Amino acid sequence: QIVELVKNHFSEVPYLKQKKILITAGPTREKIDPVRFFTNRSTGKMGYALAEAASLAGADVTLVSGPTNLPTPANVKMFRVESAEEMYQHVMDHFKYCDVVIKSAAVADYRPKHVYNEKMKKQTGDLILELERTTDILKTLGEQKEHQLLVGFAAETNNIAEYAKKKLVSKNLDIVVANNVTEAGAGFGTDTNIVTLYKRDGSQLELPLMSKLDAAKAILREVKHLMDEEKA
Amino acid sequence: QIVELVKNHFSEVPYLKQKKILITAGPTREKIDPVRFFTNRSTGKMGYALAEAASLAGADVTLVSGPTNLPTPANVKMFRVESAEEMYQHVMDHFKYCDVVIKSAAVADYRPKHVYNEKMKKQTGDLILELERTTDILKTLGEQKEHQLLVGFAAETNNIAEYAKKKLVSKNLDIVVANNVTEAGAGFGTDTNIVTLYKRDGSQLELPLMSKLDAAKAILREVKHLMDEEKA
Repeated sequence: QIVELVKNHFSEVPYLKQKKILITAGPTREKIDPVRFFTNRSTGKMGYALAEAASLAGADVTLVSGPTNLPTPANVKMFRVESAEEMYQHVMDHFKYCDVVIKSAAVADYRPKHVYNEKMKKQTGDLILELERTTDILKTLGEQKEHQLLVGFAAETNNIAEYAKKKLVSKNLDIVVANNVTEAGAGFGTDTNIVTLYKRDGSQLELPLMSKLDAAKAILREVKHLMDEEKA
Repeated sequence: QIVELVKNHFSEVPYLKQKKILITAGPTREKIDPVRFFTNRSTGKMGYALAEAASLAGADVTLVSGPTNLPTPANVKMFRVESAEEMYQHVMDHFKYCDVVIKSAAVADYRPKHVYNEKMKKQTGDLILELERTTDILKTLGEQKEHQLLVGFAAETNNIAEYAKKKLVSKNLDIVVANNVTEAGAGFGTDTNIVTLYKRDGSQLELPLMSKLDAAKAILREVKHLMDEEKA
């Protein structure tokens, strides 16, 4: 009980006051026609938990979210988008004015090259669908960042540590939050997560199974530590 | 108010008592890898409304549903599935014992030919995705039906009447419920619908904008009329 009291007290300290934090959440939808689309299993829970935790910590939070069934967290500026391209536009609009960007959205890497205006009628036999790459938002942010702290996610099914460390370097990130989305209690749709934080200085922080809100608070405390170190 | 009373009274008459009704609802998901999939904008609302209305009318209702965020309606046998193939299996398991099948699910027509076991890593440049046809559940039911009444849906964006009438014949249906999914107040995700019923005898019933539950009741009354006519 005392632990809970201390925890609650800590979470209410506005340790991110006057910090502008941009968070992305949820999947994107890449249209094939007015009815069909490509997407992924992200439900937005991790990103919304980050927005809630950042707001509780006193930050000025902007949430850019793909389609989810989650309510808008309190005291958060919300922008709802559908495609990777729309998410890219909104993120770039806000990036300059941010202290921290946390990209937890599962943005589609590919979109159909041709989008049909009318519902595609099915044919007999196979169908070849041509896909093209979407803009790599995280990479663009990594290239353009000045003072901003950049946190990315790596949702993987295999070789997690290897992919996470590679992403940290190739995208010029400060922290990568990695999780194995096939593990019980972690990944898409669950209320809990099991994450490991890989940091720019080479250190890593392995967290046990916890609620996504507690994982969000742990991530934000690391963000705060990094900001304090940069000031020192 | 009297109209409401009469309506409520009518809806509580168990006019489908002892009838076994199989309803399908929602979209299907066709996996590309453990994270990515193809789907469509169906939210399951029309199918769940049909299940609720049929149950209120005293029917023995089985609902086979793709992934939705809707709660299971009261007094309904529920099977949750993900892919078109799983939906096909469950529908065929129950078909023989049914009096009526209402296929309101938006089943994927195509699925990726190859499903990756691990999350696909993105490459530079375009990607060619090969898709193959899924089993046409409605067509299979139309070919195998004996005593069953078969109701299909046509969610279209253009040439609605033409496609609906074609579907009635090509799939050997008794009723096609057609709607324009691009019209305001109709289609995916809304709580209302605007439908036209095309019947085997060539007649059609055009309904105005109404709640999906009222549209469901109107569809079930037509089903009841057809059953009575066949008996007579």
